[in-house]
Amino acid sequence: MTEPNLGGSTALGPTAFTADDYAHRMARATAAATSAGLDGVVVTPGPDLVWLTGYTPTAVTERLTMLVLAPGTEPALLVPALERGDAATAVAPPPSTCGPGATGRTRTRWPPACSGGGRRFGVSDSTWAMHVLGLQEAVPDLRLAALTRCLPMLRAVKDDAELDRLARAGAAADAAYEEIVGAPFAGRKESEVAADLDALLRRFGHEQVDFTLVASGPDGADPHHEAGERVIEHGDVVVLDFGGLLSGYGSDTTRTVVVGEPTEEVREVHEVVRRAQQAGVEAVRPGATCQDVDRAARTVIADAGYGEKFIHRTGHGIGVTTHEPPYMVEGEEQPLVPGMCFSVEPGIYLQGRFGVRIEDIVAVGPDGLGRRLNNTDRALRVVG
Amino acid sequence: MTEPNLGGSTALGPTAFTADDYAHRMARATAAATSAGLDGVVVTPGPDLVWLTGYTPTAVTERLTMLVLAPGTEPALLVPALERGDAATAVAPPPSTCGPGATGRTRTRWPPACSGGGRRFGVSDSTWAMHVLGLQEAVPDLRLAALTRCLPMLRAVKDDAELDRLARAGAAADAAYEEIVGAPFAGRKESEVAADLDALLRRFGHEQVDFTLVASGPDGADPHHEAGERVIEHGDVVVLDFGGLLSGYGSDTTRTVVVGEPTEEVREVHEVVRRAQQAGVEAVRPGATCQDVDRAARTVIADAGYGEKFIHRTGHGIGVTTHEPPYMVEGEEQPLVPGMCFSVEPGIYLQGRFGVRIEDIVAVGPDGLGRRLNNTDRALRVVG
Repeated sequence: MTEPNLGGSTALGPTAFTADDYAHRMARATAAATSAGLDGVVVTPGPDLVWLTGYTPTAVTERLTMLVLAPGTEPALLVPALERGDAATAVAPPPSTCGPGATGRTRTRWPPACSGGGRRFGVSDSTWAMHVLGLQEAVPDLRLAALTRCLPMLRAVKDDAELDRLARAGAAADAAYEEIVGAPFAGRKESEVAADLDALLRRFGHEQVDFTLVASGPDGADPHHEAGERVIEHGDVVVLDFGGLLSGYGSDTTRTVVVGEPTEEVREVHEVVRRAQQAGVEAVRPGATCQDVDRAARTVIADAGYGEKFIHRTGHGIGVTTHEPPYMVEGEEQPLVPGMCFSVEPGIYLQGRFGVRIEDIVAVGPDGLGRRLNNTDRALRVVG
Repeated sequence: MTEPNLGGSTALGPTAFTADDYAHRMARATAAATSAGLDGVVVTPGPDLVWLTGYTPTAVTERLTMLVLAPGTEPALLVPALERGDAATAVAPPPSTCGPGATGRTRTRWPPACSGGGRRFGVSDSTWAMHVLGLQEAVPDLRLAALTRCLPMLRAVKDDAELDRLARAGAAADAAYEEIVGAPFAGRKESEVAADLDALLRRFGHEQVDFTLVASGPDGADPHHEAGERVIEHGDVVVLDFGGLLSGYGSDTTRTVVVGEPTEEVREVHEVVRRAQQAGVEAVRPGATCQDVDRAARTVIADAGYGEKFIHRTGHGIGVTTHEPPYMVEGEEQPLVPGMCFSVEPGIYLQGRFGVRIEDIVAVGPDGLGRRLNNTDRALRVVG
C-alpha cells in the first residue's frame, strides 16, 4: 500500500495500483464480510474483481473464473486453463486452474478450506446464473447472497488514490462540457452532438465512454432517452448526460442547455432543479444518510409544485463503474461516510414538452461535507 | 413469419425481423421448454432476449428486466418503470413495469399464472446473481436451471434468414482477411495489425467487433493471446483470429500466416492443422454428433504426434453471439441437425515458439453435410 497522502498520482497521471494495494483491498473485503456475518465472498469478472485484483479476463464465458476470499485462508483465484497465462501476468493472486482445458467442460471447484455445512458467502451481483446455480449444485449447503445486498458498501468508500482518479475523470468531463456548449446545436441531430461528446470525453482522457445522452425538446421528458435522429430546433431545451471511465474511474455529468433565449417557464423549471441539486449537495454533512440527500432535493421540487414530475431517485454511487451503491433514495438509511462518492441529479420531466436535469458527482470530504467533482456553471446556458 | 425460402434478405441487406418472426421464436422456445420437462423460461437481457424479442435495454442494471414464457399464458415482458418507453418501441411483447420508478427499488414481480409449487424454469445463463437469488427468495418453490444446461439447443438451429445473415458475416470476414494479408507485417506491432483488422471488419459491414487476435511467434502458442506490443519479425508465424457481429449475427475466422518463407517444421505443423480442420468439416454428415467433429480433427493431430499440443476443444456454436452452444467437444453427444452453425478450429501450440490454428464457420445443410461460410484459402500464406 502506498502512503495514503501520496494518492498514487503524478503530474503525468495516476500511477498504477500495486499488488500491495490489491492485497489491502482483499483484506478489507474479507474483514467486511466477517463483520457482516458472512463466511466469505465469491467474486467473478466485473467491477468487484477489477477493484480487488486489477484482473479482467478477455471475456466472461460459460467457463467460471472466481476469486474466493475467506478469513484464515489465502485469496484463491480459480480460472479456466486457457485463462491461466493472462491471469498470471495480472496484478492478482497467483491463479490456479479450475477445469480441464482440452474438453472445455468446467467442473466447479470449491476451495476445500471453504467447505462445511451452511456457510454463507456473498457473491458478485453480476455473476452469471449458470455459475450461481452450478455453485449451489456443487456445494449443496452453500448459502449465497448478492454482494450489494449483504455487503453493499464494499467498494463505496474510496481512498485518496481513488478520489484522485474520480476528480480527474470529473475534470475531464467538465472540459468536454465547456467545449460542447460552443458547438452548434440548432439544425443538428441529437446523435451528432452525442458523437461530438463521445469524441471530447476521449480527447480529454477517457478510455471508455459509457453514455452520451442528448435529449432535445420532448425527448428530454424521458430520463433514459439516449440520442436519436431528432433534429434539434431553435427554442429546444436539451439535456446532456455523459460519462465513462478515465484511468479506470468514472465520470457522470448532466447539464441542461437551451437553444436560444428560454421561455419564462423553462427558466423557472431550470431554477427549481438547480436549487434542488444545490440542496441535495448541501444535505451531505456529518450524520446525514443517503435518503437525506434524496429528501432534500425532492422537497425543493415538491414545494415548487413539480413533485410528480421528478420520477427517479436522486443519485447513485460511482467508482470503477458509473453506476453502483450507495443509492440516494428514500429508504436508504446508510450513513454518509467520508470517501463515498455519488451523483446528485434531480430532474423535472414534462411529458411531450421538455425535461431538465442537473447532475454533479459529489465526494464526501474528511469533514463530512460534500465536495463537487464537477465544477462547470450550473446556470441555464444558452447555446446556438 | 416470412416464408422460409425468402430468407428475409434483399440485395441491400437483410430485412428486419418482424413481430411475427419473434412470436414464432417465442412459441418455439415455449414448446421446447415443455418438451424438456420445464414449466417455462425466464429470459433476461442478452442474446436470448435479443433472439426472442429483438429487445435490448440501454443497460443491464440492478433493476430486473425479464421475459417470462410459459405454456398457456401470453409472453410477459416485465421492465423497470424507466425502461418502459424504450421497451414499448421495440419489436417485443408489450411491456409491463415491475417496480416503482421513483424509489428505484425493484420488487421481483412474478406472473401469477406462473406461480404454484415446485415449478421448474430455465433461466438465461447470464442472468445476474442478484436477480437469480432475488427470484429464489421471492418465489420459494421455484426451481431454476441454466438455459444452456436444460435447453442448450434453444438458439442452435438457425432458420434461413439467420443462415443468410451468418453467411454475410462470414463473407465480410473473408474480405477483411484478403485485405489484411496484403498489409505489411514485419516491423509492426501486433496491436497495429489488430487495429487494421478491426477497421476492415467494420468497413466490410460489421457493426460490432468482438475480437481481433494477432499472436506472433511465441505469442501464438497461447490460444487466447490477444494482441500486444510485440513487434512482428521476419520468420514469425502469426495467428489471426477475428470476428464480430454483422446485422446481428456473428463471424469468427482464423488463419495462420508466416512472414517470409516458412521453415520445414512450420510447413509440416500447418499442414497437420489444415488436414485436421478439413477432417473436422468432413465429419459433419447425417448421423454425426458434436463430439464426432472434435474426434475427427483431434485424431489427425494425434496421429501426427501433436496430440498433447491441441489444448482446446474443436469448436463452438455461433449465432447472435460469437460463442454459444453447441460445443464440438468430447462428451457432447448432441446430434448435428440441419441449420446448426459452429466453428471448426483445431490448433497446435508449441510453447515458447509458435502456434497454428485454422478456423471456419460451418453450417449444417439440409442434406446434413457441412457447408463452410468462410471461403478464403486455407493454405499457408506468406506475408511481407
